Amino acid sequence: MAIPHARSGESIDVRPLGDRLSGAHTVALFKSDELEVVRLVLLAGKSLPPHKVPGEITIQCIEGRIDVTVEGTSHVLGAGQLLFLRGDVPHGVVALESASALVTIVLHK
Amino acid sequence: MAIPHARSGESIDVRPLGDRLSGAHTVALFKSDELEVVRLVLLAGKSLPPHKVPGEITIQCIEGRIDVTVEGTSHVLGAGQLLFLRGDVPHGVVALESASALVTIVLHK
Repeated sequence: MAIPHARSGESIDVRPLGDRLSGAHTVALFKSDELEVVRLVLLAGKSLPPHKVPGEITIQCIEGRIDVTVEGTSHVLGAGQLLFLRGDVPHGVVALESASALVTIVLHK
Repeated sequence: MAIPHARSGESIDVRPLGDRLSGAHTVALFKSDELEVVRLVLLAGKSLPPHKVPGEITIQCIEGRIDVTVEGTSHVLGAGQLLFLRGDVPHGVVALESASALVTIVLHK
């Protein structure tokens, strides 16, 4: 999948998907020089195995409920909760309910 | 105002303020090595004059309605709309309705 290259002044819809969530997939919203912004979609019970990236991250739950496990500690996020992660910190995600989340990643050049 | 220093795995409430919006103020949610995240609060008719920062920015409207003017072009954001801005791009903000917005700024060391 080609990641759209961000244009300055670009406006993006990050509202809950609601009824469309069950048929949705994770999508890269844009990538710029310094940032990548992804809408993560995880249906109930699905997971992302532990992984890490060099840059700092925020994970903002848009809808549903996810459990983000960071170095063995579980953090449950509902809609409107945001988690900050330092770079290179291993984290895994499990959807406790079908969920979408905005993931903002600082890119290291 | 001291800006809270982010701890990895920190969870932050970014839900709409709703009834509390009229008495709320802009607050820095956290600052880390690479990111600063602010909840901007602007009551109807209030504005931020044009300014710029070195790092890239996303502005996500949480509630209400704001007009972000970027190099002379107006972008109206309602709840759940996100705007990407390159670094060093002058932008001004006017609240068309009382609003709060999540502003994520990449910090340059």
